[in-house]
Amino acid sequence: MSGYFFEDLVIGQTASFAKTITEADILLFAAVSGDTNPVHINAEAAALSLFKERVAHGMLSAGLISAALGTKLPGPGCIYLNQSLRFRAPVKIGATVTATVIITALDPKKNHVTLDTVCTVGGKPVIDGEAVMLVQGRP
Amino acid sequence: MSGYFFEDLVIGQTASFAKTITEADILLFAAVSGDTNPVHINAEAAALSLFKERVAHGMLSAGLISAALGTKLPGPGCIYLNQSLRFRAPVKIGATVTATVIITALDPKKNHVTLDTVCTVGGKPVIDGEAVMLVQGRP
Amino acid sequence: MSGYFFEDLVIGQTASFAKTITEADILLFAAVSGDTNPVHINAEAAALSLFKERVAHGMLSAGLISAALGTKLPGPGCIYLNQSLRFRAPVKIGATVTATVIITALDPKKNHVTLDTVCTVGGKPVIDGEAVMLVQGRP
Amino acid sequence: MSGYFFEDLVIGQTASFAKTITEADILLFAAVSGDTNPVHINAEAAALSLFKERVAHGMLSAGLISAALGTKLPGPGCIYLNQSLRFRAPVKIGATVTATVIITALDPKKNHVTLDTVCTVGGKPVIDGEAVMLVQGRP
Repeated sequence: MSGYFFEDLVIGQTASFAKTITEADILLFAAVSGDTNPVHINAEAAALSLFKERVAHGMLSAGLISAALGTKLPGPGCIYLNQSLRFRAPVKIGATVTATVIITALDPKKNHVTLDTVCTVGGKPVIDGEAVMLVQGRP
Repeated sequence: MSGYFFEDLVIGQTASFAKTITEADILLFAAVSGDTNPVHINAEAAALSLFKERVAHGMLSAGLISAALGTKLPGPGCIYLNQSLRFRAPVKIGATVTATVIITALDPKKNHVTLDTVCTVGGKPVIDGEAVMLVQGRP
Repeated sequence: MSGYFFEDLVIGQTASFAKTITEADILLFAAVSGDTNPVHINAEAAALSLFKERVAHGMLSAGLISAALGTKLPGPGCIYLNQSLRFRAPVKIGATVTATVIITALDPKKNHVTLDTVCTVGGKPVIDGEAVMLVQGRP
Repeated sequence: MSGYFFEDLVIGQTASFAKTITEADILLFAAVSGDTNPVHINAEAAALSLFKERVAHGMLSAGLISAALGTKLPGPGCIYLNQSLRFRAPVKIGATVTATVIITALDPKKNHVTLDTVCTVGGKPVIDGEAVMLVQGRP
């Protein structure tokens, strides 16, 4: 595992992961989650919905937060303890979602790291929330 | 859309969705989320980790909560507002995860529905948390 | 399993399942079936074909009949015995296919259920046929 | 397109296509078809079912018939008109399914080709039925 040790982390440290959300992502997320809500997989039903078109699963965009945390900051080896998610806007097919995480608190007694976690499209937040990770200390 | 209307919902109403998590699920969740953390996709690195073997992404199991909410209760047509997740135990390959949602509060002024959301494996919680949904009223 | 029992079924009972067919669906159906016919996966060859463009596999649309039968009517727990399929028109990328099943006969000696099964796009049939299912009686 | 012309076909001509059915196939077929029947994706529910374990979707094995027809005999360029399917036995995860098609009738007035279509596992039929294809004449 090649992530940060707890001692290497500082408040304000930040990382991002971005990915374009395609029809294939929606199809595969429906497969792995079992979430076949028509608003995601049925263009005709979605056209009659509040969003007027198919949108990505909120939890699919939330997966990009997991990617930023698990591959960048704190990176491989950390343990995911908590995540809160506020879904603020829908993500349309073809949108590029950027997940950004920034350290806001460090608890050296428990080796807990708290991060603000936000997903944006075109600079506008589509999800915000907070994560708490357990990070190993330097051996 | 064929989900419940707000007026049809009562506190205590519950629904579940269950699915076995396979290697293919982990691969495809890594693909759509970009979360290529070795603990999920590298058996050798995972053998050296705290969990001793590859485990599923926490957000993958959380996706089953989205399935229970989006396809069963409140069902198609609802809008996902908030989700909190506490990751309590890892999910191993081959585990069958059951997501259960139960209505705990109804706010008729805002048409908001609050649900306890828990994922279990063999009856033991692996994720717990709370969801808030916006549900349309009867037309 | 949460499908209907034989005793709960009546002639005329109906259910539908609908889904938009995307390029990703065609790719993945080619993968699982091994049907790499160029009319599905090669836009240049397909442009020279009778249909002038790539079309979905007929059996992919037929899969939506399986979804309507296996998840809705008769639902989980039923056993698929027979299916006839008449392919009447091609399904283009981006089309939303609606599979509708309707009970036409019930054989209480064998617990067999016969259903008309039709797939439509924009109200026009692209597949029609008939299914026979074995459905358990109430315990 | 590189399939046979009608004039090249003879009664008794045969071709096969075989593929091992894995958990990934079942997951992806569930995605493209929308058929999330628990007997396919939930090991715990499937253990309580008639088959005692997860089985592949019948239409997934039927897809291999489409592969044999569409890529081998009559091959690319043919049009699928009719298919009947009799599901005779379940297909378990890890089974290798062989789809074999054999020409039984040729109608030179309509350029229709009729084929017996059978899927076997370990030499035992799991699906049998009949296909009718429209095949172009030599230009």
